[in-house]
Amino acid sequence: MKSVKVGIAGLGTVGSGTVNVLQRNAAEITRRVGRPIEITHIGARRLNPACDIGDIKVSEDIFALVDDPEVDILVELIGGTTTARDLVLAAIRNGKHIVTANKALIAEYGNEIFQTAQEHNVDVGFEASVAGGVPILKALGEGLAANRIKWVAGIINGTGNFILTEMQEKGRDFAEVLAEAQALGYAEADPTFDVEGIDAAHKLTILASIAFGIPLQFSKVYTEGITRITTEDISAVDYFGYRIKHLGIAKDTGNGIELRVHPTLIPKEVLLANVNGVMNAVMVEGDAVGPTLYYGAGAGSEPTASAVVADIIELSRALTVDQVERAPFLGFQAEQLSTDEVLSIEDVMCPYYVRLHVQDKTGVLADITRLLSAEGVSIEAMFQRDTDEEGYVSIVLMTHRIRESALQNALEKIAELEAVGNEIMRIRVEALDAS
Amino acid sequence: MKSVKVGIAGLGTVGSGTVNVLQRNAAEITRRVGRPIEITHIGARRLNPACDIGDIKVSEDIFALVDDPEVDILVELIGGTTTARDLVLAAIRNGKHIVTANKALIAEYGNEIFQTAQEHNVDVGFEASVAGGVPILKALGEGLAANRIKWVAGIINGTGNFILTEMQEKGRDFAEVLAEAQALGYAEADPTFDVEGIDAAHKLTILASIAFGIPLQFSKVYTEGITRITTEDISAVDYFGYRIKHLGIAKDTGNGIELRVHPTLIPKEVLLANVNGVMNAVMVEGDAVGPTLYYGAGAGSEPTASAVVADIIELSRALTVDQVERAPFLGFQAEQLSTDEVLSIEDVMCPYYVRLHVQDKTGVLADITRLLSAEGVSIEAMFQRDTDEEGYVSIVLMTHRIRESALQNALEKIAELEAVGNEIMRIRVEALDAS
Repeated sequence: MKSVKVGIAGLGTVGSGTVNVLQRNAAEITRRVGRPIEITHIGARRLNPACDIGDIKVSEDIFALVDDPEVDILVELIGGTTTARDLVLAAIRNGKHIVTANKALIAEYGNEIFQTAQEHNVDVGFEASVAGGVPILKALGEGLAANRIKWVAGIINGTGNFILTEMQEKGRDFAEVLAEAQALGYAEADPTFDVEGIDAAHKLTILASIAFGIPLQFSKVYTEGITRITTEDISAVDYFGYRIKHLGIAKDTGNGIELRVHPTLIPKEVLLANVNGVMNAVMVEGDAVGPTLYYGAGAGSEPTASAVVADIIELSRALTVDQVERAPFLGFQAEQLSTDEVLSIEDVMCPYYVRLHVQDKTGVLADITRLLSAEGVSIEAMFQRDTDEEGYVSIVLMTHRIRESALQNALEKIAELEAVGNEIMRIRVEALDAS
Repeated sequence: MKSVKVGIAGLGTVGSGTVNVLQRNAAEITRRVGRPIEITHIGARRLNPACDIGDIKVSEDIFALVDDPEVDILVELIGGTTTARDLVLAAIRNGKHIVTANKALIAEYGNEIFQTAQEHNVDVGFEASVAGGVPILKALGEGLAANRIKWVAGIINGTGNFILTEMQEKGRDFAEVLAEAQALGYAEADPTFDVEGIDAAHKLTILASIAFGIPLQFSKVYTEGITRITTEDISAVDYFGYRIKHLGIAKDTGNGIELRVHPTLIPKEVLLANVNGVMNAVMVEGDAVGPTLYYGAGAGSEPTASAVVADIIELSRALTVDQVERAPFLGFQAEQLSTDEVLSIEDVMCPYYVRLHVQDKTGVLADITRLLSAEGVSIEAMFQRDTDEEGYVSIVLMTHRIRESALQNALEKIAELEAVGNEIMRIRVEALDAS
């Protein structure tokens, strides 16, 4: 049978991994597909010593791939959203199928890309855009397709999880671990996307669309990073039986969808709390299947290439098939996407962990509990830490389930108390149970 | 678009769950598929109060479904391998697509069923046959299709895992926990399939075929149950940093495939060691992706129905598509299945945990270490437990990596020593690392 012809745009970390996996496992892949997969054209400004491209044609201008009749599938691995968007749309208009690992591109321009692909009857694979090599999009869109998905909660940024794990296990400070992550190559020189949660918000956008059948709505994701987490918080929550993980959470509340990325307390004994280092894991709760979890490397050259090549294989198997018969891009038929409202973070309900620094004198605690109570915030547990050299103590408390806006109102009033220090920490709590 | 017509044979636990999920999530499923899925015919000797079948046609003779032109997909949920095999083959010959949750049927008769299906150009879905609602077959055959799979290791029998978890957490005896599992409905009145590992061996057979592209070879799986595990072993291995899990392991050694089901020591800190109760989890190590893990409910009415209905959805999406273009039954093209040899358990290499009861007198330990050493078995760690009322002590040791046959030879000679008690326990150890 005729080979499937693949053009690869971008020869960085993931591009070179994709070349290596396609070459090394060529025999295995041909056994799976029933025909060979051949790289016919690479678009890259410079070669990468991490892979040997032999005599494969190379163009410095990646747009040369778009016009090449010897390219059936264009694999976009250049990153960014400007040139990548132009490249992908041009390739689709020329009838090329697309595989991409670009989470920002799909989260921000996916609606446009999918519509264009549908008009031109081509397919777009983007499994690699979330959780690297873990086939979570396939699990959500196909494996769990029988379910009404209740919620998805994931550790979907390996850098952030590495930092929190090191802080947890070794009592090290955020800044120190971040510097090490940068030295190890886990974190970029500009770590904003990772530590401020933007990368996770891109991935959550994609997960939520496939879980609930809603359009991609990146701008509506509430996003909070891990830069304010201290080792004091990590040890305080341990006392209550929790760990702090940076989660992306998408939840169908029945009257709107919650989309939020933030540090979250989860019970120590759940599997997700035991996912450490740079690893990723996504938990999915379906109404029929109950809780499920998917774990693996969320980044890196070959783990990401694993998902890119899986998409190439799937496209290769399906190449002669009419597009309408395949699983739709977002798991649901395009005309069936729901218009469910995405909720504001103020409307989220959950328990909270709150840490305050207060002057160690009578009446302060009474003031605080009165202000909480006035907003309907009730306290489940509380403890007080030793007085420091300036006469301040840490008060750490866990609230019962409450609307975020109510807690915010109470905390704003508490912040105005003279005896209360500036920095008030609050972290959301998720039990990750079936409720 | 025309509805897809489904016939369901068997209305037990999984059959009623399948009816309930298809009915409750009908709107969601139609949004995913692009056309409705309709149950047109049920074959069952008696109705099940757990589901409301309304005015769906019912036949006491399940073979009535085979001849019904109003059935596109026949869902086999009667269990067993005799009637089920006849039913499935007859339906295939009549051009019906098949979905089944029957692990014994696929593990023992899958080769014949797939060949017949290929001849008649119909598809067979069997995601529900392994790990219930966890979409592990799809992950292996499609999501990880870029990889050469190195090994698969899974907790794939919930009853066995429930028993070991209770023994671990509460120090209870095997027999007592088994009785409770039976009372709770986790274990059958005849628990042989679960506690002797036969159910896990069926599932491992299927996992291994999809991982490595080998024919289904149930008869070659080495199978050992959990009936001999004692609370003494569980606490002894804890001392060395391990937990005992009943694993199905399939490994490509490079010169043959290992297929084995047995109690296994795994390091406490790995995620798989923290999968407790009736939950299932499968770990897969691919050459590109590294380690990945898939976790969820491995049995029960709706979790299993979740996988059954996912297969119905996939078939419905693909119904007009030529069979050759879809993912092949075992992930690899039928004519490309490999003839790699399945290794005998004697050729397996791993470290071992060994527990002996010996008379507490001088020279015994020297005899034991001499006999181990003569077979090339070297000891990594050892400790001795308190002398019991009959003057015996427990010696617990961990060996370095050794061929099973060498350890067996040594243990046979050790068993002949007068000072050594009858019962010698040995449990295999897996580090579950990338090696």
